[in-house]
Amino acid sequence: MTMQLSEFELIKTYFSPLSEQTEGAFNLTDDAAVLEVPVEQSLVVTTDTLVEGIHFLSEDGPKDIAAKLLRVSLSDLAAMGAMPAYYSLAIAVTPFMSVEWFKEFSQNLAADQAEFGITLIGGDTVSTSGPLTLSLTAMGFVKTGTALRRSGACIGDDIWVSGSIGDSALGLKVAKGEFDSLAAENKDYLLSRYRRPLPRTLLGQELINNVHSVIDVSDGLVADLGHICKTSDVGAKILMGTIPLSVAGKEAIAIKPRSIDLILSGGDDYELLFTADSTFQKLSKIISERTNVSLTKIGTIIKTKSVCVLDLNGKRYPVSKAGYTHF
Amino acid sequence: MTMQLSEFELIKTYFSPLSEQTEGAFNLTDDAAVLEVPVEQSLVVTTDTLVEGIHFLSEDGPKDIAAKLLRVSLSDLAAMGAMPAYYSLAIAVTPFMSVEWFKEFSQNLAADQAEFGITLIGGDTVSTSGPLTLSLTAMGFVKTGTALRRSGACIGDDIWVSGSIGDSALGLKVAKGEFDSLAAENKDYLLSRYRRPLPRTLLGQELINNVHSVIDVSDGLVADLGHICKTSDVGAKILMGTIPLSVAGKEAIAIKPRSIDLILSGGDDYELLFTADSTFQKLSKIISERTNVSLTKIGTIIKTKSVCVLDLNGKRYPVSKAGYTHF
Repeated sequence: MTMQLSEFELIKTYFSPLSEQTEGAFNLTDDAAVLEVPVEQSLVVTTDTLVEGIHFLSEDGPKDIAAKLLRVSLSDLAAMGAMPAYYSLAIAVTPFMSVEWFKEFSQNLAADQAEFGITLIGGDTVSTSGPLTLSLTAMGFVKTGTALRRSGACIGDDIWVSGSIGDSALGLKVAKGEFDSLAAENKDYLLSRYRRPLPRTLLGQELINNVHSVIDVSDGLVADLGHICKTSDVGAKILMGTIPLSVAGKEAIAIKPRSIDLILSGGDDYELLFTADSTFQKLSKIISERTNVSLTKIGTIIKTKSVCVLDLNGKRYPVSKAGYTHF
Repeated sequence: MTMQLSEFELIKTYFSPLSEQTEGAFNLTDDAAVLEVPVEQSLVVTTDTLVEGIHFLSEDGPKDIAAKLLRVSLSDLAAMGAMPAYYSLAIAVTPFMSVEWFKEFSQNLAADQAEFGITLIGGDTVSTSGPLTLSLTAMGFVKTGTALRRSGACIGDDIWVSGSIGDSALGLKVAKGEFDSLAAENKDYLLSRYRRPLPRTLLGQELINNVHSVIDVSDGLVADLGHICKTSDVGAKILMGTIPLSVAGKEAIAIKPRSIDLILSGGDDYELLFTADSTFQKLSKIISERTNVSLTKIGTIIKTKSVCVLDLNGKRYPVSKAGYTHF
């Protein structure tokens, strides 16, 4: 079934209900939304764009596209320590999209809104000859003066990372038909990590005032550590053997040992990578329990301005790709 | 010359300088921007998307695309009475775009930033197989509780419109090679109205507390009046002979009298259309002088829930198209 609803009907049927909890969104019937920012809070704003064929596969369903779109931005908010609040959504719709697509897409947004405490407040729906292009601007709040930054890493800081690294890049390979011999439950796990990122929203808020620098791992572990180092004017040394891997990730690497490069450079993990002084060690256990997210120390901030990865023998491992770049 | 800069270089060279005046944009080097909203002010947010071949012509230059993109959103802020503050920008770049394109594009944004008092605070730059797609989310401030709305029109209100109507739709025809016999300066004027909308930023702020409902004319005069009527649960009657036309618009209609339909339904005027009680008549002269924008009374809000256009003989004029819809 191809599109049978006008732009106005589409908005009214599938998007207005997502804005109901925010009065100032006016059911998406006005020129703009009018929003309140609590006193002594700053507004945190981030924009992410997904293009069919580049950021998601043409065969990916509306459910996974919705999850990825919103959660990628939520991860950026998490990296600043912000509490999610509002988002606006721009969709360039192709001629091949069905009403059913919008139904599933909006149902998934509704579920994620409830889970992460964010509501739709506006946007734009236009047509395109293709590819499907979605752009989302997410807004959150953080107590003024406390936002987490990339730029505060100090020489001697420990480098920490949440969860496990590399699952999403391995999941993309699985989606493309690789790793055929992997156990079915491990395939499913990696696919789910690729398709439905888990923004570390609570963890970000717990890190406020406790760490020196934070970034979310989107371009790749080494590349994102490079962003911290560049803005902080320092370098980093990480031990490959300490990078946290999931059970599925370990099995995948056992099958194809060269996949270790995906751990270092694959990207799209949406874990938080951060640096802190040694007093964080003790705190890490409490925060890990409170947020139900594992935290692992993987290296040290150093003076020499490069990111150096040491293998199990203490030798420098050559990083084959500095991370995902968009051109 | 095709693209020779990476995403990071592109941002650093052409976009970071546009964010310099806002400290919390961190030169676009962090995961998100951290912004302040003044006390007792609400945040006004609007998103607009432009797609090559649909919202602008493939032959349109970066200068005009930049102007249209930013000014369309500024017009939405104006319709709420908001003072412009920040914007984020998402661009899906095609393989055919040059560094020169970005240079011109960013230069024009810089000029408009200075003119309208708004700064870039973030965004996303991604690649697409085409068409060029740009999405902008603009943010402004309005004193809490005073935002202008579409929904306040009252029976008996006068209907007012700023500037002149229809120029942009006529300008698009000129751009497509029509109206060949039109005087050169009139062609230029209509083209400029199509390519470089003039958001009524100051006028919007002056209308606060003085009018009952406001919208910007983007879908078309009749369609946008319909939006006011629908959200206000009223109807409207306008007199065709009173709709303000530019000198160029008048000449175009003299050449092709059927073009009058473009006045009613053409859209993209970005004038403010608003309703107010009779006390506004006197105030209109003062506001018009203060903002240097003409204001014209074109009709009345009525009880019957439709938009009715009366021709010069007082007969109902059949509106051929209710306004621009996106599908």
